[in-house]
Amino acid sequence: MSVKAFINGKIYVSFTPLRVESSLVIYGDRVLYVGSAERALELARSLGGEVVDLAGKTVMPGFIDSHLHLDTLGLALSTLDLRGTKSISELREKLRDYASNSKFTWILGHGWDQELFAEKRWPTRWDLDEAVSDKPVLLTRICLHAGVVNTRALLVSRVAESGLPGILRDERGEPIGVLLEEALKYVRERVKSELTTRDYVEFIKAAQDHLLSMGVTTIGVAGCGLKVLRALMSLWSRRELRVRVRLYLYHRDGDVDILDILDKIGVKCGFGDEYLRIMGIKLFADGALGPRTAWLSEPYTDDPSTSGVPLLESEELRKLARKAHDTGLQVAVHAIGDRALDVVLDAFSYIKPEKLRHRIEHASLVRDDQLEELKKLNPALSVQPRFVISDWWAKSRVGERRIKWLYRFKTFIASGLLVGLSTDAPVEPVNPWETIYVAVTRGKYDNVPYYEETAGEKLTLLESLHAYTQGSAQLLRSESEIGTLEQGKLADFIILGKDPLSVAEKELRELRITETYVGGERVYP
Amino acid sequence: MSVKAFINGKIYVSFTPLRVESSLVIYGDRVLYVGSAERALELARSLGGEVVDLAGKTVMPGFIDSHLHLDTLGLALSTLDLRGTKSISELREKLRDYASNSKFTWILGHGWDQELFAEKRWPTRWDLDEAVSDKPVLLTRICLHAGVVNTRALLVSRVAESGLPGILRDERGEPIGVLLEEALKYVRERVKSELTTRDYVEFIKAAQDHLLSMGVTTIGVAGCGLKVLRALMSLWSRRELRVRVRLYLYHRDGDVDILDILDKIGVKCGFGDEYLRIMGIKLFADGALGPRTAWLSEPYTDDPSTSGVPLLESEELRKLARKAHDTGLQVAVHAIGDRALDVVLDAFSYIKPEKLRHRIEHASLVRDDQLEELKKLNPALSVQPRFVISDWWAKSRVGERRIKWLYRFKTFIASGLLVGLSTDAPVEPVNPWETIYVAVTRGKYDNVPYYEETAGEKLTLLESLHAYTQGSAQLLRSESEIGTLEQGKLADFIILGKDPLSVAEKELRELRITETYVGGERVYP
Repeated sequence: MSVKAFINGKIYVSFTPLRVESSLVIYGDRVLYVGSAERALELARSLGGEVVDLAGKTVMPGFIDSHLHLDTLGLALSTLDLRGTKSISELREKLRDYASNSKFTWILGHGWDQELFAEKRWPTRWDLDEAVSDKPVLLTRICLHAGVVNTRALLVSRVAESGLPGILRDERGEPIGVLLEEALKYVRERVKSELTTRDYVEFIKAAQDHLLSMGVTTIGVAGCGLKVLRALMSLWSRRELRVRVRLYLYHRDGDVDILDILDKIGVKCGFGDEYLRIMGIKLFADGALGPRTAWLSEPYTDDPSTSGVPLLESEELRKLARKAHDTGLQVAVHAIGDRALDVVLDAFSYIKPEKLRHRIEHASLVRDDQLEELKKLNPALSVQPRFVISDWWAKSRVGERRIKWLYRFKTFIASGLLVGLSTDAPVEPVNPWETIYVAVTRGKYDNVPYYEETAGEKLTLLESLHAYTQGSAQLLRSESEIGTLEQGKLADFIILGKDPLSVAEKELRELRITETYVGGERVYP
Repeated sequence: MSVKAFINGKIYVSFTPLRVESSLVIYGDRVLYVGSAERALELARSLGGEVVDLAGKTVMPGFIDSHLHLDTLGLALSTLDLRGTKSISELREKLRDYASNSKFTWILGHGWDQELFAEKRWPTRWDLDEAVSDKPVLLTRICLHAGVVNTRALLVSRVAESGLPGILRDERGEPIGVLLEEALKYVRERVKSELTTRDYVEFIKAAQDHLLSMGVTTIGVAGCGLKVLRALMSLWSRRELRVRVRLYLYHRDGDVDILDILDKIGVKCGFGDEYLRIMGIKLFADGALGPRTAWLSEPYTDDPSTSGVPLLESEELRKLARKAHDTGLQVAVHAIGDRALDVVLDAFSYIKPEKLRHRIEHASLVRDDQLEELKKLNPALSVQPRFVISDWWAKSRVGERRIKWLYRFKTFIASGLLVGLSTDAPVEPVNPWETIYVAVTRGKYDNVPYYEETAGEKLTLLESLHAYTQGSAQLLRSESEIGTLEQGKLADFIILGKDPLSVAEKELRELRITETYVGGERVYP
């Protein structure tokens, strides 16, 4: 097992309490020693280890993104980017290039806009066929309300025979390949069901590369079906997982009752190893604020006809949470609206969330009376600071009175609640410095209309860094192995040219890492 | 994480190649250094570790028993021992004492013999009721063909209403509690189905304590149903597993298709952590030599009317092995007779055993032509040397010509096959020195009738020690973490007062260990 001493750096061992040392010795995948250069050199000599001079560079624990979607992140990263394409012939060239390197069952692209094309017409399936005819192709328009497929995709999807509206045809009545709305949705569902475990393996590898390049060393996968699980097991058994994965499975996938399977074989929270652990079950209590599907206790300000929708009946949610809890699995429930949170708190009141550290995802809109209930039940919260700038329109949805209930990160921490940070990627970018920047500035430099009302919910930089490392580790019940660089922890760390504590808050989003280590091995670049 | 230096000992780092050092430093659960006392002391000083003077004692890697039955071992160890009981009143006293400390659903005992009783009569349910009336009791006679139950057991089992023969009754026609053959078997099945996961947790703890006291630090569980799996998961999640467990699950348990479940969620060989890993599936090709159910290619010498019986149709075996292999699971198939081995070799010829290291359990009777096939396919073999003395009657079963095919351990090793040792406990005693003693002496001092014919199959002490540590580790696909005390391995080791290489072969079975460490922690005494 290899021994490596990193000396003469600025090493953030932990952020709360703040501990900084100059040197770090790793033994295999673990931190053997953190402290002085003198002692580090002595150990390297005794054990025959390599010595690396950090020359003043900053080292900190790898980021832990406690909530994201690995497969859709990988799919997004693997999709051909057609934004800004100026002509159909350019689109054809891009498609040909991309397809010749693609390992996927379907060739997927996104971002074209026929208004920009020199040809001033829709692209057709015959255009696409010239580039790719042996695999099905689906290229979605920038708006996601239209798409174009090649002939092979038309045939395998049988969309033309579906009788659905939205299939553009030429004067002879032949489908030209352009699909709108329902017809497009139909093909997208088809694509999803046809993607293989092998496709998912490639998506996960793409996502993993991106995560490691951003300094994210452990992730919580907030929702995982059987194909993704099988792909992860496959990568795990080939020892190709480099980012550590903590899994929250959907309770059901098609006709397979996943929760029931886990219960039968008695899988407990955390079963697996340092790279892949099954943590528990992901459930949904409601939707999101954007499409007004987050479930509120009072109607939307900008549409009083709706208060949003529950995604699981209260009783069903209670039943599933109880079954997962009794099996010994962690429960992570998506709740954005305050009414959804009521339902989750009710379900949690039956199963003492503290023991298995059951989680609430997002907890976006929280009333004052709910804070008391949260303190009493003490669930863990996974929050996404970058939503603050993405949801700049939020005040129109919830109005003046309720805007103060939105994204109450500082209040959570001040209440003693366990908070971990995350991105919900691909919903928000993976780059942790984007998240940290927003957690600290809260949209001050981004024209967020509710900046003033919620500026009190800003986190300090140290609070943000702590919640993004140790805090997230606690959410993933992995704080004994990751989250700090104390002796005995897994050697997951990143190296930066600049010290985050020495830059102006406005420049936090410009920070970049130069190296990423997982389990003592350099995995980026 | 704790650092501990053991100095001034005789430390067997590995047996093949033979490597002996004086000192060992452990860091947390791993070997940090093995070599000189000087360097060990230096490391302990640098890292602030404790120093232990071994004062010349011998240290070696913990034993790895590659094939045993954890639940039945625990059950056997937890059963009230009634051998030699001299009276019904003594039996009552023993039963009362035992029951007052028992945590089990059923009170089970074994070994009484009414011929020894001062009262010169059968024990009855009313005798037992005086000692225990609130829990069901079953006490089997020394021969296992008879048993006595208390009134509660009679009621809950409903055996009296079963219409089965073998229920002794008094002059009024009342069942007295004594059950023979079928009636006994009926109640034993009932007991098995009524034992709870909690009962199994206690069995496993009893088995674990015994294993650790004997210096066994890792085991292969050769057959595991859902209750045992759930009990293990439960102990694992409470961090109460101290012996490392590698699991081979039955492919089916009742109406649950375990293999299908593992396939659905994509579980791969080795999933789990250092304490609990799911390895694969246990299958049976035949029975055993004792009851003449081992499947031979020619009839039994002492009963030409039978050649034994296959336990799985060849095609079913092939299908199950293929499914497990395709899922990425290891296959371990029980094959004692040479005809059963033919079938296993045929099944293995379709699935290249080398990649996942598929195993053959026992491989008791192997023809010369099969040796060639074994070398070609190269499966791993788990063998039980102590069978050599337990099966002292084997020559009468297989005759002069075939006795040379029995337990060909040396031939296997000389052929370059991967061999791991085991006990099949509770079939043979857990004590590894019993196994080593027989592997080395082959019944020379135990009047084994076929000693002369198979003396060439003796192993050397070093071969035995290697096969019982590193060899078994390879069978369990765990050689990167256990089996030797090289730097980086898990610190699983035992301490002995005497050096095994310095005692006469006849005295090997008298060796005793004084301490057992697993993952750097002392777990015995």
